[in-house]
Amino acid sequence: MVNIGTKMYNLMERLFPICRSITGDGVRKTLNILSEYIPINIIEVPSGTKVFDWDIPDEWNISDAYVENSDGKKVIDFKDNNLHVVGYSEPFNGKINLEELQNHLYSLPDQPDLIPYVTSYYKRHWGFCVSENQRKQLNKGVYYVKIDSTLDSGSLTYADLVIKGRSQKEILFSTYTCHPSLANNELSGPVVAAFLAKYLLEKKNNYYTYRFVFAPETIGAIVYLSTHLEYLKKNVIAGYVLTCIGDSGPFSYLHSRHGDTLVDQVTKHVLNNTEKEYRLYDYLVRGSDERQYCAPGIDLPIGSLMRTKYGEYPEYHTSGDNLDIIDPIELERSLCKLKLCVDVIEKNRIYKTTILGEPMLSKRDLYPTISTKNCTLDVKPMMNILAYCDGKNDLLWVADKIGKPIMKLFPIVEELLNNGLLETIE
Amino acid sequence: MVNIGTKMYNLMERLFPICRSITGDGVRKTLNILSEYIPINIIEVPSGTKVFDWDIPDEWNISDAYVENSDGKKVIDFKDNNLHVVGYSEPFNGKINLEELQNHLYSLPDQPDLIPYVTSYYKRHWGFCVSENQRKQLNKGVYYVKIDSTLDSGSLTYADLVIKGRSQKEILFSTYTCHPSLANNELSGPVVAAFLAKYLLEKKNNYYTYRFVFAPETIGAIVYLSTHLEYLKKNVIAGYVLTCIGDSGPFSYLHSRHGDTLVDQVTKHVLNNTEKEYRLYDYLVRGSDERQYCAPGIDLPIGSLMRTKYGEYPEYHTSGDNLDIIDPIELERSLCKLKLCVDVIEKNRIYKTTILGEPMLSKRDLYPTISTKNCTLDVKPMMNILAYCDGKNDLLWVADKIGKPIMKLFPIVEELLNNGLLETIE
Amino acid sequence: MVNIGTKMYNLMERLFPICRSITGDGVRKTLNILSEYIPINIIEVPSGTKVFDWDIPDEWNISDAYVENSDGKKVIDFKDNNLHVVGYSEPFNGKINLEELQNHLYSLPDQPDLIPYVTSYYKRHWGFCVSENQRKQLNKGVYYVKIDSTLDSGSLTYADLVIKGRSQKEILFSTYTCHPSLANNELSGPVVAAFLAKYLLEKKNNYYTYRFVFAPETIGAIVYLSTHLEYLKKNVIAGYVLTCIGDSGPFSYLHSRHGDTLVDQVTKHVLNNTEKEYRLYDYLVRGSDERQYCAPGIDLPIGSLMRTKYGEYPEYHTSGDNLDIIDPIELERSLCKLKLCVDVIEKNRIYKTTILGEPMLSKRDLYPTISTKNCTLDVKPMMNILAYCDGKNDLLWVADKIGKPIMKLFPIVEELLNNGLLETIE
Repeated sequence: MVNIGTKMYNLMERLFPICRSITGDGVRKTLNILSEYIPINIIEVPSGTKVFDWDIPDEWNISDAYVENSDGKKVIDFKDNNLHVVGYSEPFNGKINLEELQNHLYSLPDQPDLIPYVTSYYKRHWGFCVSENQRKQLNKGVYYVKIDSTLDSGSLTYADLVIKGRSQKEILFSTYTCHPSLANNELSGPVVAAFLAKYLLEKKNNYYTYRFVFAPETIGAIVYLSTHLEYLKKNVIAGYVLTCIGDSGPFSYLHSRHGDTLVDQVTKHVLNNTEKEYRLYDYLVRGSDERQYCAPGIDLPIGSLMRTKYGEYPEYHTSGDNLDIIDPIELERSLCKLKLCVDVIEKNRIYKTTILGEPMLSKRDLYPTISTKNCTLDVKPMMNILAYCDGKNDLLWVADKIGKPIMKLFPIVEELLNNGLLETIE
Repeated sequence: MVNIGTKMYNLMERLFPICRSITGDGVRKTLNILSEYIPINIIEVPSGTKVFDWDIPDEWNISDAYVENSDGKKVIDFKDNNLHVVGYSEPFNGKINLEELQNHLYSLPDQPDLIPYVTSYYKRHWGFCVSENQRKQLNKGVYYVKIDSTLDSGSLTYADLVIKGRSQKEILFSTYTCHPSLANNELSGPVVAAFLAKYLLEKKNNYYTYRFVFAPETIGAIVYLSTHLEYLKKNVIAGYVLTCIGDSGPFSYLHSRHGDTLVDQVTKHVLNNTEKEYRLYDYLVRGSDERQYCAPGIDLPIGSLMRTKYGEYPEYHTSGDNLDIIDPIELERSLCKLKLCVDVIEKNRIYKTTILGEPMLSKRDLYPTISTKNCTLDVKPMMNILAYCDGKNDLLWVADKIGKPIMKLFPIVEELLNNGLLETIE
Repeated sequence: MVNIGTKMYNLMERLFPICRSITGDGVRKTLNILSEYIPINIIEVPSGTKVFDWDIPDEWNISDAYVENSDGKKVIDFKDNNLHVVGYSEPFNGKINLEELQNHLYSLPDQPDLIPYVTSYYKRHWGFCVSENQRKQLNKGVYYVKIDSTLDSGSLTYADLVIKGRSQKEILFSTYTCHPSLANNELSGPVVAAFLAKYLLEKKNNYYTYRFVFAPETIGAIVYLSTHLEYLKKNVIAGYVLTCIGDSGPFSYLHSRHGDTLVDQVTKHVLNNTEKEYRLYDYLVRGSDERQYCAPGIDLPIGSLMRTKYGEYPEYHTSGDNLDIIDPIELERSLCKLKLCVDVIEKNRIYKTTILGEPMLSKRDLYPTISTKNCTLDVKPMMNILAYCDGKNDLLWVADKIGKPIMKLFPIVEELLNNGLLETIE
């Protein structure tokens, strides 16, 4: 049987070659593949639709693009790597000399082997991205440039999935589907999200409702919020933006704007109790869709879970961000961490001891009957749960207070609930 | 004239030989002796009475117990030390061989000279406690075991005393009376409590009402709370569990569950301003009746004042905890510290300056009339009291704010009250 | 054209020789000179008027005072330095020997060259202040003492000025006018206050109303508060006591009693972002009219802005505190710092982003249209303002949150207001 990390990696391999952007058939193909795994709803929003301060742009599709030298040799070819074309490049067809061509080329002098990732969504433009080395080999002369793209009225495509739990209160996961052949940023997010959704679909008896959003970055989150805002504000109690979550770096967490919401507390507690090394980032250095989810007036309690943060690894936004830096084992580690966070949120409730004073534990076989000086039975965590669960603070607070991972408290809480010594405060 | 420390020590000498337990005549004898000092009320609660999650157990009394070897020699004898019998041992009479006897013996390999203190209140059992050295001298063979005890329906005995003050609001002191011949833990608590009560009875014009509880540990506190809970919750503003308060170690304070109540603030302020060395303990390491007084739903603002905390000194719960580790001078030091805490609580009120702007102190002879550069009169504390007593914060807050022991502020407050410059906010 | 620092210094030169006290013609002369600069209202309060806990004392005036030796030589002469006479000295005329004279002499053994400043406002007394060196030269013998003063019913004189802004809410500046020939403490305060008032009068379109109080220390602040308290409590949102603000020491700020009011936040932010070295003082070491403005029941949000704090420089309250320690450049620096604080208070409002989610900045030419990895345009502060201005916290909070001086945010806020992306919450 193939392990889950490998399955995740296989999905990423299927998705990697597709040329995605904020609109277009690449996004549709991507969502169709995801729908083989989880029953997402795919929605189309027409170009020109007003969403908050923005308008849905024209839809962009591209079938071919290249630069040919005077010998008829393709010196830059979209078919080699879809990063070679500036995202949203308008159609172009013509001969130009090298000087003019240079104005349309993008490269990275400091990373001469890598093709950069460049877009121009909201201003008509065309261009090619090349490695600095490739650029240096271009000789003076006339080049034939062909960009076979369309940029016309169409629609923006996104998907969501709602997995109902016993409570209407929701945990939201959002990730983006607008990057072309870039692996960690951003196919790791959609892949991890899809497998987390699959897990939650198969898991029975979820307490919370889970919502997954697959949409282009920025404009997609804005679309989603503009159409679901009141409901989300009423029901979302925690959530994550998932991005850059497939490399082998230590876990990173960027907290929500308010910084001390449930998701912030849970994630810090889980990382602190399970990882030797991890990184916390302030909202000041935000850079993904938490910018929309946490904006003033929207204020959803959402943080970002990552491995190495965007912008912090050298391959970021270049052709170096490919499948080579993704490890199946690390994809699965990321998934497991999210499952654990979900489990903690599910079980982190406010409990209250049902009786006054300490209960008589020995009559329930929960306490030694003979009192000696050197008792070895560790009844302290149970006594502490009973002493601090006062119906006011949640179990996470109790766990931090008594210095134990909340995960270790769950079986004890279960036993106390079964013995009628603890009750859940709704 | 005999000093007070010696009087306290003499009382402890009288109480020490009595075999106490959570019920029985040992407790009654103890309370009768205490009633020679202070007018306590002695209450009997019948076996089987339901108290919160507990039932009052049968009453235990013991007149004799020994183990005799085949030569007719008593090798273990209750009359030598009442710790030799496991507390609440059921009656037994019979011959058994050494192997079987061993299952009923308790000793401390790490402290081979000391007899441990062991009880089995809630499960029928019998046993003997011996020093490890004594145990090693037992030869193979048959032993005659006699435990002349009764364990039948009867009652649990406790006492309280209420000393009325001008206010119905109460300060509660609780200590326990269930330990047999153990000195620091626990005869120091009852003795110090008795002499503090005596002092408060003799002192005139107490502002607060003072309540003293003498009861067996755990079950006694639970009995008391189950019968007085609503009244105590309404009226108790501070309180102490008194335990292990007769040895010569530095003072120790274990704060209430909430950790920042009046008693916590007062005790920390007093210790900080009067002791070079003292110890603060978190509620996490609780272990005496604060477990009941501070339990969720009960939530009384009560901390524990101790010298060396239970479990932290080697003689704890062994025959080494005897009168040798008690010093009359230290008993008196403990009493004095409590008197000081009481005094601070009595006088720590919310005050408010009666006039707007700074008062003209010189016309009341409270300020120098000539203003020179190097004024030597220290009017600063008085000016600070007037500047910070705004009717919102109590004097303790003011004392901490201005960095002075509250005890040094009392005479100044008195003078300001007499001059009509300060009023008390009730 | 004469620079403003020189103009300020020139005013101080005119005021320096006048013999001021808490009442009398010296104060009137001083206020008349100030009224050449700003249109202050001058108010007289009759002797005996009850003000809070105080009574307005009799008015003191002095025309001459000296001590003559038996040779007819004036060995101490008020005409040399008005500090030579103890403030509020009652009239005296008579011959006394040296021993008796010594009881009326004040000097500073540790600063033998300097004449101390001594007063006795509220107890009838007479005396002379001399340098220790001068005192040592007095030979045994009989001296003729003449104090040609009057101490009779009259009035206390103070002035105020209100500069109306669009809002009724006020910023208050208070300084004192009761010191004789002392420069830093206290002519720097009145001179800086006068020039700040002049600046605010000439500046158009003030948002807040500005109030200036020129009155004798302590009794003057008490008079002012007793007659304006309700209005000030309702309207003053911030204010400064100005004292010791003309020397070349680093800026010092003594915070208001509550310690975290607007003026405290603004001043700390401004000093922190503009000065390499500055000093913060707790209200515990207060010593000027903040004692009245911040007293319990009055509670105005007022701090003290100083250069070197009173009592902290060796010339304090001696003849060494003269024009030599005042520098025109430093007077102007103090004025500029106050203008900056005023500017920050004027512009520190609560703002709210007007749209949900991030606005589309590129369509307003506020954001680069092409997204590349190494963007150089610094849009971060603008994005941060939009991300943190949520209508709840003021701009000062935002500035501290994002780690920028608020002064750098003003032009960005202006641009965002102009673009309709930000609104002011009143």
